[in-house]
Amino acid sequence: ATQSATAVSATPVAVVAAPVASSVKSSKWYDRIGLRGYVQMRYNQEAGGDAKDLRAPGDKFIGKDQGFGIRRARVVLSGDVSDRMSIYLQPDLASTPTGSSTTNFAQLRDAYADIYFDKAKTFRVRAGQSKVPYGWEDLQSSQNRLAMDRADALNSAVRDERDLGLFFYYSPGVAAERFSYLQKSGLKGSGDYGVVGLGFYNGQGANRPDRNDQLHTVLHLTYPFKFANGQYLEVGADAYAGRYKVASPTSVSIGGSTFTPSVNAPAEGSVDRRVAAHVIYYPQPFGFQAEWTVGRGPELDVARKTIRTKSLRGGYAQVMYKFDGEFGSLMPYVKWQTYRGGSKFDTNAPRMLVDELDVGVEWQPVKEVEIAVAYANMRRTDVTTAPYARVDGNLIRLQLQLNY
Amino acid sequence: ATQSATAVSATPVAVVAAPVASSVKSSKWYDRIGLRGYVQMRYNQEAGGDAKDLRAPGDKFIGKDQGFGIRRARVVLSGDVSDRMSIYLQPDLASTPTGSSTTNFAQLRDAYADIYFDKAKTFRVRAGQSKVPYGWEDLQSSQNRLAMDRADALNSAVRDERDLGLFFYYSPGVAAERFSYLQKSGLKGSGDYGVVGLGFYNGQGANRPDRNDQLHTVLHLTYPFKFANGQYLEVGADAYAGRYKVASPTSVSIGGSTFTPSVNAPAEGSVDRRVAAHVIYYPQPFGFQAEWTVGRGPELDVARKTIRTKSLRGGYAQVMYKFDGEFGSLMPYVKWQTYRGGSKFDTNAPRMLVDELDVGVEWQPVKEVEIAVAYANMRRTDVTTAPYARVDGNLIRLQLQLNY
Amino acid sequence: ATQSATAVSATPVAVVAAPVASSVKSSKWYDRIGLRGYVQMRYNQEAGGDAKDLRAPGDKFIGKDQGFGIRRARVVLSGDVSDRMSIYLQPDLASTPTGSSTTNFAQLRDAYADIYFDKAKTFRVRAGQSKVPYGWEDLQSSQNRLAMDRADALNSAVRDERDLGLFFYYSPGVAAERFSYLQKSGLKGSGDYGVVGLGFYNGQGANRPDRNDQLHTVLHLTYPFKFANGQYLEVGADAYAGRYKVASPTSVSIGGSTFTPSVNAPAEGSVDRRVAAHVIYYPQPFGFQAEWTVGRGPELDVARKTIRTKSLRGGYAQVMYKFDGEFGSLMPYVKWQTYRGGSKFDTNAPRMLVDELDVGVEWQPVKEVEIAVAYANMRRTDVTTAPYARVDGNLIRLQLQLNY
Repeated sequence: ATQSATAVSATPVAVVAAPVASSVKSSKWYDRIGLRGYVQMRYNQEAGGDAKDLRAPGDKFIGKDQGFGIRRARVVLSGDVSDRMSIYLQPDLASTPTGSSTTNFAQLRDAYADIYFDKAKTFRVRAGQSKVPYGWEDLQSSQNRLAMDRADALNSAVRDERDLGLFFYYSPGVAAERFSYLQKSGLKGSGDYGVVGLGFYNGQGANRPDRNDQLHTVLHLTYPFKFANGQYLEVGADAYAGRYKVASPTSVSIGGSTFTPSVNAPAEGSVDRRVAAHVIYYPQPFGFQAEWTVGRGPELDVARKTIRTKSLRGGYAQVMYKFDGEFGSLMPYVKWQTYRGGSKFDTNAPRMLVDELDVGVEWQPVKEVEIAVAYANMRRTDVTTAPYARVDGNLIRLQLQLNY
Repeated sequence: ATQSATAVSATPVAVVAAPVASSVKSSKWYDRIGLRGYVQMRYNQEAGGDAKDLRAPGDKFIGKDQGFGIRRARVVLSGDVSDRMSIYLQPDLASTPTGSSTTNFAQLRDAYADIYFDKAKTFRVRAGQSKVPYGWEDLQSSQNRLAMDRADALNSAVRDERDLGLFFYYSPGVAAERFSYLQKSGLKGSGDYGVVGLGFYNGQGANRPDRNDQLHTVLHLTYPFKFANGQYLEVGADAYAGRYKVASPTSVSIGGSTFTPSVNAPAEGSVDRRVAAHVIYYPQPFGFQAEWTVGRGPELDVARKTIRTKSLRGGYAQVMYKFDGEFGSLMPYVKWQTYRGGSKFDTNAPRMLVDELDVGVEWQPVKEVEIAVAYANMRRTDVTTAPYARVDGNLIRLQLQLNY
Repeated sequence: ATQSATAVSATPVAVVAAPVASSVKSSKWYDRIGLRGYVQMRYNQEAGGDAKDLRAPGDKFIGKDQGFGIRRARVVLSGDVSDRMSIYLQPDLASTPTGSSTTNFAQLRDAYADIYFDKAKTFRVRAGQSKVPYGWEDLQSSQNRLAMDRADALNSAVRDERDLGLFFYYSPGVAAERFSYLQKSGLKGSGDYGVVGLGFYNGQGANRPDRNDQLHTVLHLTYPFKFANGQYLEVGADAYAGRYKVASPTSVSIGGSTFTPSVNAPAEGSVDRRVAAHVIYYPQPFGFQAEWTVGRGPELDVARKTIRTKSLRGGYAQVMYKFDGEFGSLMPYVKWQTYRGGSKFDTNAPRMLVDELDVGVEWQPVKEVEIAVAYANMRRTDVTTAPYARVDGNLIRLQLQLNY
């Protein structure tokens, strides 16, 4: 606590020239820092099959006895606090501490600064908790995503898409302008994570302490091409590697046998490495988007009663169309995803099989409101509870998103 | 995370016309969104009887070995983000997750948007977590309430007065202006929840996931009459119905018998329905305020060792007087409340008997500061711990409220 | 929840003269309230000895298997909301509720108002949760501190440096101007806690409920002298007294014996009282800073298997030098600290022996960024786990601080 009235004090104190040169752009705090955010409210309705037994990592309001849910309630504090530094602080107000029976507490998603090495902001380091530049949909804000949830194949790589570390980005001018345009124009770009990104981070995921004395490394490459007719196409690839410490295994009963799996990995954790590729043909008006990943990571081997390194693979493909008119913007889409691999975030890292087809439409009558409706056929492993059964069910999903 | 410097970027990016028409009123975020709030600090002093054994749902700082407490620390982000939508986000910074030994975490109270169906804002839907329009004192902000706590008869209906859902309000112009005046004038109105309100919500209370596949329904009617001499009178009634899932019962020892109550209700939960009526004769300068409710809800039946649907009833009456002068505003009041019914929020839903008399005064020297002193005679069931004893005690209660 | 669009409503409601006179300075909320903050990101690297076994109260990222950590993520809402009142709300977004496996939740640090008794703001009461005016380094913001962590001798007095209560401060004009200058000039002052301060507070520490029916009392004296050559010297002393309730003891195994300590104290808690003195010769450019404390408090007596009142003592001394130039501000320092006494915040209140030497440098290239590097030789009791072993190890410590 510094003096009480620091920010907007009218007390006649002697204002002196600070020995450290200020590079602040404005004397008004509200010109340096902006505040915005969004809220997502959901409702899932069972529509056949074993929908009541479905569980999905992307939405805790899927399953039986669910009503309305607040999926995300975000507040973003951000701004160019000086010529060479911008900050970004984003708590989520719909988070739950472990063990709490009430929900909707405020927990950090992002807390980072971009520090620019040059005036043109071509080179920068992003220091703090931020998105790990692996995958494309993982980098795209949930505020902009068309589908309800991210594809599990890619999203099972980095917990909450984020980690704590240092990330270096190279964004030459033309690419930076395109990244910005693709986001602001309503084309649902992913934002600017450079055409080249290189990062070093803890590796256990957002808001989790590190558990080994090693850092993960990630390399990110992408480029937004623009055709003569104005059509944008983004193509890229990423890779990361590190050691991941799974949670302490607990006793499971599968197929008549009850056992507590051992962890077949050295003290610094299990092998955790993936490569991914993405292609996005932006919806002008027809669009296409696909990603694929392969890699290796910890996975429960029921036969051997151990959690050991196994291979994984999966991805998704999506087609969409953007209708613009007096009614606003209307975007129907079809998304198919698949995943075969371990669910390393969950206790015992069970094998997760996902085959899901979503058909939906997002309507944005004005910039501030988005209404999405989707029909989903999900075939998913329930990775939350042994014996990790496969469930097949259908859902009608509704989302109201409020942007402010 | 979108691009880092979204809000107040000075980077020369190509700004393009968004295909979705913006209905935003101002280009400055701080003209669209406002920030305000209040903090309540309390001190309760035992003043006779078994005051040390008192427990009250409205104030966790009642009881033995208590010092100062922060009852509420609210921050409100709100504003008309477009012609047709306003948002309201209110975290409380004095909340505690279950199981945490430290307190004062940030947890949502409100997170909603009002979406208006007409230009005059006569019809709207409020989507998100917001107050359930049942009762009048429950809708009045704690920032405006004269008495320290809400009456239990009405406040035992909806946990933290709020739930997640869709609420439709009809506020014709004259009524809307009066609701606004009654709040801004210092007359301590409840705000605008329509002259007619109809809502559908989860039913388990604020920040709690739903536990059945049904919604609660609430209907709200109220009207602010204005007499020729300028005196305001508000009269109304509300009703709600739904199924409430009580917490898992735990073993209790009452009257020499130890048992774990069974729950006598179907899988979707216990009957939970109430009707209520209110009359408020606003303090110009003399005021009178009363509410009464009857209904049915889950309640522990000790003789049958079960939690079953039983009837409940109760309410309160309050007289107050508003002195205005150079000293600011001074409002003495006397409030009497009673309740006979189950405490459904508490484990085992014990029967709760409340008879309480409060005599107090609130002094508001300037708009930013309110000091309240009250003497309370409480006769209350301790619903937190079996055998759910009735306690009779007296308290001197102090509150300092800071509005910003 | 009051009416939705309170803050920046454009709805044409009848605006009336409030009966309570407003003393608000500006009609714009953003001129009354300001928002700023800072984030500290750390990395500790073992550098010899038993560094992996080190544990320190000031930094949970010390110890084995640690990577990057967010030590503090602060957001400050503050401002002069009227002529006679200023408010200060500071959540930390890097806090963890007890029992949660994920971190970085928002929890209050400060929540107080300064209410001024005179126009010149010479006399004021600070009501709410705020820093307890004991010690000098404890009052200095972590945003301004040169060393990574506070000295344990003084910081073991008040949990998180703060408590809930009423604090009266006397700040005559000359001293108030100097306190302000010493902070804003980059000389790393502690802010204005008066030349005389007197406070009454719960005594169990920030964000912890009181546990007895007594308040702690603190008295604070300090004065910032200014020599003819412009050199500042601050000298002062403080004292506090009260009763502290230690946590419930748990079973420990020490020296072949296993026992659960008894607590040798009355129901209202253990004796808890200290006096402290400080001297700060501000770095213009050479600086010197030292504090010492003695007192009595609860401490585990292994021989008697009890927690009883024992004496404690300790302090620190620091020398520093401030280089200013085109590179910004560079401040090398050497800090030595020692402590011999109980660690009352920890279960069983074990005896804590600390001898630590830090050699470091803080570089502030621009006002918004601070980079600190330090080498530390720590000899510390691990007070988190019995048998409370003494550990000797060396660390290289890095901190990146972002001010916004």
